[in-house]
Amino acid sequence: MQRFVNDPDYVVEDMLKGFLKAHGDLVAKSEANDRVVKYINTPVEGKVGLVTGGGSGHEPAFLGYVGKNMVDAVAVGEVFSSPSAQAFYDAFMEADAGEGVACLFGNYAGDNMNVKMAVRKAKKAGVTVKYVTANDDVASSPKETKEKRHGIAGGVFMWKIGGARAAMGGSLDEVIASAQKAVDNTRSICVGLSPCAIPAVGHPNFQIEEGTMEVGIGHHGEPGINVQELEPAKKVARNMAETVVEDLEIKDGEEAAVLLSGLGATPVMELYVLYDEIEAYLRERGISVYKVLIGDYVTSLDMNGAALTIMRLDDELKELLDHEAKSPGIEVSK
Amino acid sequence: MQRFVNDPDYVVEDMLKGFLKAHGDLVAKSEANDRVVKYINTPVEGKVGLVTGGGSGHEPAFLGYVGKNMVDAVAVGEVFSSPSAQAFYDAFMEADAGEGVACLFGNYAGDNMNVKMAVRKAKKAGVTVKYVTANDDVASSPKETKEKRHGIAGGVFMWKIGGARAAMGGSLDEVIASAQKAVDNTRSICVGLSPCAIPAVGHPNFQIEEGTMEVGIGHHGEPGINVQELEPAKKVARNMAETVVEDLEIKDGEEAAVLLSGLGATPVMELYVLYDEIEAYLRERGISVYKVLIGDYVTSLDMNGAALTIMRLDDELKELLDHEAKSPGIEVSK
Repeated sequence: MQRFVNDPDYVVEDMLKGFLKAHGDLVAKSEANDRVVKYINTPVEGKVGLVTGGGSGHEPAFLGYVGKNMVDAVAVGEVFSSPSAQAFYDAFMEADAGEGVACLFGNYAGDNMNVKMAVRKAKKAGVTVKYVTANDDVASSPKETKEKRHGIAGGVFMWKIGGARAAMGGSLDEVIASAQKAVDNTRSICVGLSPCAIPAVGHPNFQIEEGTMEVGIGHHGEPGINVQELEPAKKVARNMAETVVEDLEIKDGEEAAVLLSGLGATPVMELYVLYDEIEAYLRERGISVYKVLIGDYVTSLDMNGAALTIMRLDDELKELLDHEAKSPGIEVSK
Repeated sequence: MQRFVNDPDYVVEDMLKGFLKAHGDLVAKSEANDRVVKYINTPVEGKVGLVTGGGSGHEPAFLGYVGKNMVDAVAVGEVFSSPSAQAFYDAFMEADAGEGVACLFGNYAGDNMNVKMAVRKAKKAGVTVKYVTANDDVASSPKETKEKRHGIAGGVFMWKIGGARAAMGGSLDEVIASAQKAVDNTRSICVGLSPCAIPAVGHPNFQIEEGTMEVGIGHHGEPGINVQELEPAKKVARNMAETVVEDLEIKDGEEAAVLLSGLGATPVMELYVLYDEIEAYLRERGISVYKVLIGDYVTSLDMNGAALTIMRLDDELKELLDHEAKSPGIEVSK
């Protein structure tokens, strides 16, 4: 295993220590819980608190989206495992400034269970928490059962939109409504070229044969829609874009934000090669790209592959997307 | 070869098209030369022009450092090959606003030759170009022959510092002096865990055996100082930091900027694991970290590994480092 790790059982601790040192101008560890990272100015008076959380190995997600006008506190799980209910609860307490807390997380069984337990506990403590679950991964369940779909890179848009609404003084219900609107208008798909290995396991739990690719693979290696021959980038990009556009039903004349994330071991050069054809496809369909983010936004350890996320925009979402923000994972300046 | 490419002979063209589409708010293609990318507002009246250039495969370098208060124009080479003298010349012409041009590039034979040819041609055309060559890679030549060392990730600091000096109204000589000061105070070292393959070649030109690492490897796979057993991240990080600190002769009580770049296929999580121990080592030595950048800043196609760069700071370099800037590869906001 060619990796920069110490004891593989403590990779999350080691990553967290490095992260906190690197971004001490924006984030700090919660004093209540070693697995909670908070924005240094949280709780922000008069502002709805924003919380997220999820398994590690997706860096810069989830903790990299803590910051100014973004997420206030994050619950940090083991590699590819949900944070505990206690961590979510402690994150709620860090984020709460008396205006309530919006928990914006990705749809996975463990996260769902732990968030709900934490919400009940917070209620008893007098803190109102409402939540939105991202379910942007079109490959994880058919459209008829969209509520079963997992959240993948689309979370970035959910946090950016929810964070901006909260920063602009939105009430808890308004923050929830804007974040839900982001989720409703966002779809993603991944393509995997090589598997990833959890450091403590030491080898991949699945394989992608040389010369093939897995279309629709999940962010933890969940089986995709189709294992097929590896195609030229243009065909891969066009297929990804078409799948997302069709599912989202985004139409001629509409505007979109596009996020193309590497999965951890994806060369930057190749993301631009893919993007060339993604943009060409969208243009052919009459969809104009208002904003594009390319790089490592939500990764899967050392997986080679890419995740395409498209969010349909309207005037509200454009304003919120453009609102100033600063976090390790995303920065929007005037 | 598990890659997102079309015809491997045209990977630079395809990357460039995607890059220009993705960052059209900041950059545009030169009308004079398909292999020159310019800042959309260049030439900036009254400002010294900044130019760089180099081979492709290092994305976001070099072209990702074109932008506001950064580089004005970049010459784009084939994968791991110098841009042509004509491309450097055309970049000079794009960047020149009548105040002269500073060409800040990495020390490699081909780039050196082509920059010098282009400088002579520019002189005949009445445009003064002066240059600084980054030679931060401590592994590429002994200290006694520092002028032979290659430029690697340290270029990022050179461009940031030079760009800020130019933006603040510095004369050509002042921009050159600040950029040279950045170079003189910057050292880097790479560690490689897996090789990289030029797409048109289809397989790596060198190997790194499983269970080993190559300390001091170059950004194109140039042989390092030592091939040795792969060690825990703490030892790797400490060794990298010590090598750089010793060569730079940065001392107790001084301040530093740290850049830790992945080489293309390096998981984000692992960069943070390394950084934890790099910071610990610097702290032990009494060196305080003023600013840190972690992510893909200068890559080597699909190489797995990391480059550590440290720049010694003084008040001037701190002010220039903090000056507002916006480019695809780096953004500094107030």
